[in-house]
Amino acid sequence: MLSLITAIETHDIRFPTSRELDGSDAMNPDPDYSAAYLVLRTSDGGPQGHGFTFTIGRGNDVQVAAIQALRGHVVGRSVAELCADPGALYRDLIGDSQLRWLGPEKGVMHMAIGAVVNAVWDLAAKREGKPLWQLLADADPEWLVSQVDFRYLSDALTPDEALELLRRGREGAAERATELLRRGYPAYTTSPGWLGYSDEKLIRLAQQAVADGFTQIKLKVGADLADDIRRCRTARAAVGPDVRMAIDANQRWNVAEAIEWTNALAEFDPYWIEEPTSPDDILGHAAIRRGVSPVKVATGEHVQNRIVFKQLLQAGAIDVLQLDSARVAGVNENLAVLLLAAKFGIPVCPHAGGVGLCELVQHLSMFDYVALSGTIEDRVIEYVDHLHEHFVDPVVIDDGHYRAPSLPGFSAELRPATIATYTYPTGAFWAADLADADLAATVESAKELTA
Amino acid sequence: MLSLITAIETHDIRFPTSRELDGSDAMNPDPDYSAAYLVLRTSDGGPQGHGFTFTIGRGNDVQVAAIQALRGHVVGRSVAELCADPGALYRDLIGDSQLRWLGPEKGVMHMAIGAVVNAVWDLAAKREGKPLWQLLADADPEWLVSQVDFRYLSDALTPDEALELLRRGREGAAERATELLRRGYPAYTTSPGWLGYSDEKLIRLAQQAVADGFTQIKLKVGADLADDIRRCRTARAAVGPDVRMAIDANQRWNVAEAIEWTNALAEFDPYWIEEPTSPDDILGHAAIRRGVSPVKVATGEHVQNRIVFKQLLQAGAIDVLQLDSARVAGVNENLAVLLLAAKFGIPVCPHAGGVGLCELVQHLSMFDYVALSGTIEDRVIEYVDHLHEHFVDPVVIDDGHYRAPSLPGFSAELRPATIATYTYPTGAFWAADLADADLAATVESAKELTA
Repeated sequence: MLSLITAIETHDIRFPTSRELDGSDAMNPDPDYSAAYLVLRTSDGGPQGHGFTFTIGRGNDVQVAAIQALRGHVVGRSVAELCADPGALYRDLIGDSQLRWLGPEKGVMHMAIGAVVNAVWDLAAKREGKPLWQLLADADPEWLVSQVDFRYLSDALTPDEALELLRRGREGAAERATELLRRGYPAYTTSPGWLGYSDEKLIRLAQQAVADGFTQIKLKVGADLADDIRRCRTARAAVGPDVRMAIDANQRWNVAEAIEWTNALAEFDPYWIEEPTSPDDILGHAAIRRGVSPVKVATGEHVQNRIVFKQLLQAGAIDVLQLDSARVAGVNENLAVLLLAAKFGIPVCPHAGGVGLCELVQHLSMFDYVALSGTIEDRVIEYVDHLHEHFVDPVVIDDGHYRAPSLPGFSAELRPATIATYTYPTGAFWAADLADADLAATVESAKELTA
Repeated sequence: MLSLITAIETHDIRFPTSRELDGSDAMNPDPDYSAAYLVLRTSDGGPQGHGFTFTIGRGNDVQVAAIQALRGHVVGRSVAELCADPGALYRDLIGDSQLRWLGPEKGVMHMAIGAVVNAVWDLAAKREGKPLWQLLADADPEWLVSQVDFRYLSDALTPDEALELLRRGREGAAERATELLRRGYPAYTTSPGWLGYSDEKLIRLAQQAVADGFTQIKLKVGADLADDIRRCRTARAAVGPDVRMAIDANQRWNVAEAIEWTNALAEFDPYWIEEPTSPDDILGHAAIRRGVSPVKVATGEHVQNRIVFKQLLQAGAIDVLQLDSARVAGVNENLAVLLLAAKFGIPVCPHAGGVGLCELVQHLSMFDYVALSGTIEDRVIEYVDHLHEHFVDPVVIDDGHYRAPSLPGFSAELRPATIATYTYPTGAFWAADLADADLAATVESAKELTA
C-alpha cells in the first residue's frame, strides 16, 4: 500500500544548560541548548523521519512555527517518492517564492528547510536499512549530483566537475569504508574550553582530553585579552606542545581587532582561529587570514548557505571549512558544500556540539572520507560531551575517534522520555521549574508586602 | 506621569495581489503582498508606534511570531527613554545572544527587529511632532553617530569618519530642506514593467509614466530572453531615448548568465541591471559589474545587513545601492548603510513598493538629501502605485516626485478598516474568500460523487 506523509509533528525542546555555563563563550554567555524538533509521520507502520534545528533558547518557538509553515509542501507526499529523490522536495522548499522572501536561503526559514530535508534523509536511510553515511557512500555519483542545486554556484563548481569529483571519490571507497569501521573518524574536543569554566576545570578537562586520545582541543577566547593569555598559557602547559589547540572567538571582533588579538596569542601556537568576525564578512576573513598566518582561519557554523561558502573559498578566506549539519538546508546543500571544499582542496572540520549536531554531522564527514575527498588528513569533527544521552542512537567516541554509526538512519531521533521532560514550557522539567519560579516570585512579593 | 510600553500588538495582514499579477517577476510569480504589522501600545493617551515587516504571503505568520518573540525587550520600557535613544533598544535586540543564533543579523529574526525598531522611530517622531526625515535632519551629528553599531564596520567606516560626514552634511541643510519642500524627491516607477502584464498594458503604462513626469521606468526581466528583447524594445519605443529604463532580474541568474543576458539587452540602453544574481554573492556582483559595463549594477532589497552592504562597496560590486526600509534592523542600521554609501560615493536609490515601503523609505532618502549626502544627483526612489490607500499618511507623488511628508511620524500606520478587512485569515475579506473556497471545494466534490 502507498505510504504517505500524514503530518509534521513538532516539539519545542529546551535543555537548561545555561545553569552550568556549559557552552558559554564570548558571544553566548548563557545558552539553553534547544531543538526545534520534528517527526515526519507516515501512513504505514514503517519508520518515521526525524529532524531538527539546533537553537540556544529564546526563539525556538519561532523556529518551530517556521517548520510548520512548510507542511503544505510535505504532507500528502509519497514516502517512496520523497526517499527516492529528497532533492525534489529540497528544490520545492527553497523555491517557494513566497517563503523565499523571508530569506532568501538564510536564517529561520532556511534552517527550517534544513530540519525537514534532514528528516527526509533520516527516513530514506531507515527505509534503505543503512546509516546515512553508507547510503551516501553507496549512491551513484550521477544521483548525488542530481541532489545538488547548482544555482549561484556554477562560477565555482559545475555539475560536470561535481560528477568528476564523485567518480574519483569512488576509487578505493571499499578500503576506506573498512578502515572507517575499524578505526572511526578523528575528533577534537571543545569540552575543556568554555569561557565560564575555572582554570582548575580547564586544566583537568584538557588533561583528560589528552588521556582520552584526543589530539586537538579548543578554547573559547575573545572576552578579555589578559584572561585569554592566561587561559591559553594554562592550557598549552596542560597538554604539552604536540596537541593542537584551536581558539574560537565566536564572531566577537572587528577585522583589525581579530588580527591583533590573534597575534597576541600566537606564542601559544594556536592551530586555528575560529569565527574571528561576522560569518557574513567574506572579505574580512580574507584580510584576517593574511594578517594572522601561520595561524589558520576557520569558520562555517553560522555560514548561512552554499553561496557564502563558495565565496569564502573563492576569496581564499579560510583554511578550514566548518560545515554545520543543521544551519543550511540539510544534506542536499551540505553535499554542495562538501563538493566545493573538495574542489578547492580545503579540509572540512565540522562544527558540532549543541543538541544532536555530533549525531548528524558524523555521517557527512564519514561519507566525505569514504567516497568524496577520500582523506582524513587534517580533518577532525568537533566533539562536545553534552546531551548525547537524549538520543536513541547517540554518538560513540573511542580513543578520540567517532565510531561509525551502524543503525539505519541519520541518528536524529530523540528518546520519548526526553520529549516528555524537556518540551517547553509544558514538559515535566519546565512545568516544575516555572512553577518554582512562580512560587519564588509569590514569596518575594509577599515578603515585600509584609516588610 | 511616566509612560511605558504596555504591549506589542501584532496583525497578520495580507492583500490578495496575486490575483491581478501585480508584482509578478521572474522569481515571484504570484505574491500576496503582506505585512507583519505591529503597534507599540503606550500607557498614556499619546501617540502609539507603528511598524511592520513586508512579506509576500506565506510565512507572514512566522514573521509575526518573530516580532512577538521580541516583546520581553520592549514591554515595560519607558517611552521617553526609548524615544531619546532608539539605539539602546536596537543594540539590545541584535545583542540578545539566544535570538542572535537564529540569524545572526539576517532573515526572519532580523526583519522582526527592524519592524520593532522602526515602530520606535515612528513613536519618537510623533512625540517630537516631526516627520521622521526632519527629526533625523535636525538631529545632532554626535547623537546620530551614537545610533549606529560600528561592529564589523570599522575596517570601512569609523565613528570619526561618520561624524565628519554628518557634520559636512549639515552645511547647506536649511536650503536643501526648503528645496525639498518645494520640489519633492525624484521617483521612478516600476508600475509598467511587471512580467505578467501584456505588451499593450506595458505600452500604456510606460507612456503614462512619462506623461506623469517620471524620468525613469523599470522592467522585470529574466524569465525568457526572447520575451525580454521584445518587451525592452517595446518599452524603449514607447518612452523614447531620453527616459532611463532600468531592468530587474530578481536574482534569477548565475554569474555568467547574468553577464550574457544583460549584454543581450544592451542595445535597448538599460540604465541598470538590478538583482542579477543572489544578493549574497558579493564577488559575483563584482564579476557581473566588470562584465556588463556601461550598464550599471544595482542591488540591495534583499541584502541582509550592513556587513554585506559594506563588502558590496569594498569590492566595487555595485553602482547603485538599493536600501530597503524593512529588510534590515530598521532606521539605525539604515543610518549605517547611508553613511557607508556616502563614504564610498555610491548613490542610494531605495527599493520600495510592496506594502508601505514607499511610505517608509522616502523619509530616509529625504534625510540623506538634506543632511548627509546633500545631493539628489542620480538618485531616485522606486515608486509603485499599489496599496497606498491603506495608510493613514500615504505617499503623495507629484510630477514624478515624492512630496515631503508633513505629518509627524514614519508614515507607517495602517487604517483601522484595512486591518479589519485584510487580517489573515479572520478579517472580512479572507473569511469570505476562504468560505467561498470551501464552498467551491464542496461543489467540486459533490460533482465528482454524482458524475
